[in-house]
Amino acid sequence: KKHHFTKYGDRGMSLEHEINQSNQYYLSKGIAVIHKKPTPIQIVKVDYPKRSAATIKEAYFRKASTTDYNGVFNGYYIDFDAKETKNKTSFPLSNFHQHQIDHMKACVRQNGICFALIKFVLTNEIYVLNSEDLFYYWDDQFKGGRKSISKATIDKFGYKIDYSLNPIIPYLKAVRKIILKYKEI
Amino acid sequence: KKHHFTKYGDRGMSLEHEINQSNQYYLSKGIAVIHKKPTPIQIVKVDYPKRSAATIKEAYFRKASTTDYNGVFNGYYIDFDAKETKNKTSFPLSNFHQHQIDHMKACVRQNGICFALIKFVLTNEIYVLNSEDLFYYWDDQFKGGRKSISKATIDKFGYKIDYSLNPIIPYLKAVRKIILKYKEI
Ligand SMILES: [Mg+2]
Ligand SMILES: [Mg+2]
Repeated sequence: KKHHFTKYGDRGMSLEHEINQSNQYYLSKGIAVIHKKPTPIQIVKVDYPKRSAATIKEAYFRKASTTDYNGVFNGYYIDFDAKETKNKTSFPLSNFHQHQIDHMKACVRQNGICFALIKFVLTNEIYVLNSEDLFYYWDDQFKGGRKSISKATIDKFGYKIDYSLNPIIPYLKAVRKIILKYKEI
Repeated sequence: KKHHFTKYGDRGMSLEHEINQSNQYYLSKGIAVIHKKPTPIQIVKVDYPKRSAATIKEAYFRKASTTDYNGVFNGYYIDFDAKETKNKTSFPLSNFHQHQIDHMKACVRQNGICFALIKFVLTNEIYVLNSEDLFYYWDDQFKGGRKSISKATIDKFGYKIDYSLNPIIPYLKAVRKIILKYKEI
């Protein structure tokens, strides 16, 4: 049975698509309202043809200054980024940028729930790593620590999320545990 | 003195720019983390020239499925849209779309704080109208009610925000009142 569920991660659906479908499920069931933010674009030139829609003729991708996903779950502000790695034994911290970490730190200061959703694509395994753990290893790399988080560490401190039928990635299970651990002491 | 402050709304700065600067102030002071979402774009054609950045050659504006701004303030999920009207005596409900209202209703069900930030541009007056009031008048229009909310009603049930030096639009003052009214009974 678990093998059956695991297949969902193999179908060539992108991680972003899997998360979007999971969010759509959560939305449709009234469980949470979480959306991917649009990709930020720098628009340079727009044509306004008569009788048809404005056409963007020149634009560039901008670097996102925050994370990809945010929303609200049961009164809690939720904010996370999804990252994939082809690495088998560790998650390279270079997948994050300083401004994304800064953004998550600012959100945590406002009592938001922030985390990384990390997919090891070769083994099709997904983990939720709470921001406090991510921050620890992020900051540690500038004090001589390693530039990656070992998978063993992620397995120990993070929450493994098994692919399921619906939602495909039931990551709010991990969020509930994070809330229980950090918010209701 | 009030006249001096009021000038900030006259400078030709767009409402969006004023809100972004206010959000930047709140962020820099550690008061809240609230951002405008990027404009959603449907990308059709991208060039990948050698040695330079990918260039979007054809793209179209998509209708936003949610609201323009969201974030976190003191543990609360904040979600709002900013609307301008040249109308002097009322706010036409056609400034909102059903899907924006649906989005805000879903967020309120998750205990988020949602509202409209409404600017009467001819008089340079800004109001925060809590979503519960917005929903009442929105729904009422389909039961034979009027297609706009009178400014008198907005003045009675909403929160007037005076332009100030920093932040330019101190709308979190109204949010604090909404939290006191709805959340801490
Ligand atoms: Mg990402
Ligand atoms: Mg708007």
